[in-house]
Amino acid sequence: MEFTSETTANGVSELSFTVDDIPGVLWSPADATGNHPLVLLAHGGGQHKRAPGLVARAHRYVTACGFAVAAIDAPGHGDRPRTEQDEQFTAGIRARLSAGEPIGPQVATHNAALAAKAVPEWQATLDALQKAGHAGGPVGFWGLSLGTGIGVPLAAAEPRITAAVLGLAAAETLAEAAARVTVPVEFLLQWDDELVPRDSCLALFDAFASPEKTLHANPGRHLGVPAFELASSERFFTRHLGEGVTQPR
Amino acid sequence: MEFTSETTANGVSELSFTVDDIPGVLWSPADATGNHPLVLLAHGGGQHKRAPGLVARAHRYVTACGFAVAAIDAPGHGDRPRTEQDEQFTAGIRARLSAGEPIGPQVATHNAALAAKAVPEWQATLDALQKAGHAGGPVGFWGLSLGTGIGVPLAAAEPRITAAVLGLAAAETLAEAAARVTVPVEFLLQWDDELVPRDSCLALFDAFASPEKTLHANPGRHLGVPAFELASSERFFTRHLGEGVTQPR
Repeated sequence: MEFTSETTANGVSELSFTVDDIPGVLWSPADATGNHPLVLLAHGGGQHKRAPGLVARAHRYVTACGFAVAAIDAPGHGDRPRTEQDEQFTAGIRARLSAGEPIGPQVATHNAALAAKAVPEWQATLDALQKAGHAGGPVGFWGLSLGTGIGVPLAAAEPRITAAVLGLAAAETLAEAAARVTVPVEFLLQWDDELVPRDSCLALFDAFASPEKTLHANPGRHLGVPAFELASSERFFTRHLGEGVTQPR
Repeated sequence: MEFTSETTANGVSELSFTVDDIPGVLWSPADATGNHPLVLLAHGGGQHKRAPGLVARAHRYVTACGFAVAAIDAPGHGDRPRTEQDEQFTAGIRARLSAGEPIGPQVATHNAALAAKAVPEWQATLDALQKAGHAGGPVGFWGLSLGTGIGVPLAAAEPRITAAVLGLAAAETLAEAAARVTVPVEFLLQWDDELVPRDSCLALFDAFASPEKTLHANPGRHLGVPAFELASSERFFTRHLGEGVTQPR
């Protein structure tokens, strides 16, 4: 693990890093040490580790909850090279959208291929952050859509993750892994999702083996998750990961 | 409106009252005046205005949120006389339970009959509380199961109610009224509800015309709503009714 830069603003320290050529960011409370909880943020399809929504979420988790927060670019996203398969996927999606055809099944299949690469990358990132002394406390995972495509098999494989906020994904490619997830899950569904059929998203919620799982469904399309769900996720993580570091101000 | 007794404990004032022979309770912050939000609590079937869960909820809303809270007995419940129809319903339910038959449709039909009486009773209670100076602020409604059987037509008819927590009820008898509800709704569903079929409960959520509505579904049976939903309802009401009165301590 190599740390490439550090900045501090508004009480949040931001460290850029790479692990095996995978670029990432670690946000944490400035001037705080100790085994605070760590939340992993997995961005959505077409986004990257510093997408505005992810940065805003990371800052909230640091300043309101006292957590550390890490994000990495998914394969073919952000600062990472794009493969021939990535380019073909993008061209295929554009063609289907132009033709007014549904893209949900194509997105789910592509996300499953990305997840097969991304799961060991997240595990290597967690190993490296732990060795560097940045992840001694409990670990949570947040990711929707592509982030859930990665997060479900990751949570099934990785016992260090003890709570997850997931959602906006279909059962077909993920139900089998979900049946091996037993940690508490807060699961988001958009009632009018144009990418993920409602019944298939409900079926994915149903598939989790977790004794504590809670479904939050809201009206609106795939990208329209209401702002109050950010605050809900803070309480969910605080409930399951514990209180973070109170920052000196 | 007649006030029959007042006690104060732990910063909560408790006033017993009657409105047209309907007995009720008003909980409010002790030593506080002003137009704080008021939340109406409608108990479930077979319960009453001072059921332990209702009293605990009322105290939380008063002490944590600074709200006033009112509850009345539903027709045939608590301190109110039971009709021949009530007795027949209870006997019928017992017989069906003994025979291992489902009771959901019978409960829904009986609840609809109770709601036809209870809606004008709640409106008279709200009138009386306003005249007595206890309901000058925004008004919320909380009620599950029978409380939703009453709350949906009440929220459809009563413009003073500006936010509602509802759930654990089926669409068949309530969807038409739900389509006339436009205020924010937090709606609870129990994933393994033995009384309310999942699809019918989802259909009731779908039926609300409210631009802001949020479904919270959790594993478990009809009476197993998890404790964290109490805290969620506090934040929902605070978001929509505003901050209550900060208590002197």
